[in-house]
Amino acid sequence: MSALFERMAIIGLGLIGSSVARVVRQHGIADHISVCARSPETRQAATDLGLADAVFADPAKAVADADFVLLCTPLGTYKTLAEAFAPSLKPGAIVSDVGSVKGSAIRDVGPFMPDGVTFVPGHPVAGTENSGPHSGFAELFDRRWCILTPPDGTDENAVNTVADFWREAGSEIEIMDAAHHDLVLAVTSHLPHLIAYNIVGTADDLAKVTESEVIKFAAGGFRDFTRIAASDPVMWRDIFLTNRDAVLEMLGRFTEDLSALQKAIRYKDGEELEALFTRTRHIRREVIDAEQADPDEAPEDTY
Amino acid sequence: MSALFERMAIIGLGLIGSSVARVVRQHGIADHISVCARSPETRQAATDLGLADAVFADPAKAVADADFVLLCTPLGTYKTLAEAFAPSLKPGAIVSDVGSVKGSAIRDVGPFMPDGVTFVPGHPVAGTENSGPHSGFAELFDRRWCILTPPDGTDENAVNTVADFWREAGSEIEIMDAAHHDLVLAVTSHLPHLIAYNIVGTADDLAKVTESEVIKFAAGGFRDFTRIAASDPVMWRDIFLTNRDAVLEMLGRFTEDLSALQKAIRYKDGEELEALFTRTRHIRREVIDAEQADPDEAPEDTY
Repeated sequence: MSALFERMAIIGLGLIGSSVARVVRQHGIADHISVCARSPETRQAATDLGLADAVFADPAKAVADADFVLLCTPLGTYKTLAEAFAPSLKPGAIVSDVGSVKGSAIRDVGPFMPDGVTFVPGHPVAGTENSGPHSGFAELFDRRWCILTPPDGTDENAVNTVADFWREAGSEIEIMDAAHHDLVLAVTSHLPHLIAYNIVGTADDLAKVTESEVIKFAAGGFRDFTRIAASDPVMWRDIFLTNRDAVLEMLGRFTEDLSALQKAIRYKDGEELEALFTRTRHIRREVIDAEQADPDEAPEDTY
Repeated sequence: MSALFERMAIIGLGLIGSSVARVVRQHGIADHISVCARSPETRQAATDLGLADAVFADPAKAVADADFVLLCTPLGTYKTLAEAFAPSLKPGAIVSDVGSVKGSAIRDVGPFMPDGVTFVPGHPVAGTENSGPHSGFAELFDRRWCILTPPDGTDENAVNTVADFWREAGSEIEIMDAAHHDLVLAVTSHLPHLIAYNIVGTADDLAKVTESEVIKFAAGGFRDFTRIAASDPVMWRDIFLTNRDAVLEMLGRFTEDLSALQKAIRYKDGEELEALFTRTRHIRREVIDAEQADPDEAPEDTY
């Protein structure tokens, strides 16, 4: 089978970018990979790990001659990068990204795309709490969803090609409107991360009071939150800044519900507590049934 | 090595009770196990699984002749059960429990203990999201902390014996004041569970709006919360009702911090967001260093 692309450029070689490079290599999805990375250490890692045929600090040089350009940097860098590399794009090139917020991606990248170049916004819903070029692995996208959010009028062939790219990387494809994506992800991803960051921060303040006992007895449930709250700080800063409205909306609902729960505890309303806890228990089963969690995963401590 | 106890009684055969029975059998910690369970199904399971030498519906019958009685039922049942079995306790018997709140355990069980019987409150900080006699396993307590909170004046020999019991089950022992335990666990366990229950409830309401997309894209971070929020509803209802003051205090701090975070998002204060997310990242490392999480655990999706 011939490669989907002759030449591909990956801008940014963190967890996602380096996992993309690995799966592209392993599955032969592109014949040639150019990598652009800002730091000399990451460029060295790209070479050492054999993830690039050419390595550049300048995004404009990295994208020249590329059939497919994949933006894998934090959302806050999109505008500057798109402006920098747009003039060097080859006619007919396809540009995509992996960012967790699609409204801002379209707003920041779209306007810079020259005629004959198509931007297909994408979001592989996959990741770990680890960062950097050494943390990637080729199986990261396997059986995960990749959501594409092409604006109305986007060239269909380009959308299909990007879909094929992610399918070859192991993912399943879902196509939806950018605003809807940003709302759904605000619930399933952004709010959970915000809450995890917050509770770990609250507990950290208390750990200073309780002489590290918060760490010592973390197996009681807190531990799970520390994993999520170890995710990349810059990436997540940009997610909250760019998906601000949807996150604030979801946070409002969460706080409303939490106030009701607080009141139930204060007034010792055991029935209301038990009713909620019984309802939430079913959701776990639905998540497992949807094959988004492994029922056989090693039991972890929770209390 | 001879058994630590000749006769032991386990009241309640859920995840914890049945795991205790398994490890007692496997390590020969007691020669004879009496099990008390309310439901005929659980009593049948105790027999089928070979976890009991004798099975009773009546707690008073289960504790007769026992050297060691371990209460493994939800906190809300303690008072009624203690009152019911106290008159049948043998002189010199030791009574302990596994409840997640120690202040209420002392308040509800202590007063019923006859002269010559010692109550040593305990809390093995271990568990999974699964419930019932079939969900237990002998390794549950292995390398986990068991916290004992004997009130001032508790017989030292009895405390040492209960400590030996948990050491033989694989645990490490920590001794602390009940009020302090309840505060530490409010942070490391009760608040995380409350938050997880709440966010899963909020998302469930939204799932009805977004046509199951919340379930479909749960790998974005939400998934981890569903696991914790699948924990036993009655057990957790009782934890929040009995540790009300400490939970409300911690919830107050959490909400305060969340309001500050919400404000930072609203006013696009990227520096504050990044500072918090950088700080919380270190905590994960501390938890791993304290051997309360496995750095080699399979990477899980988080965004």
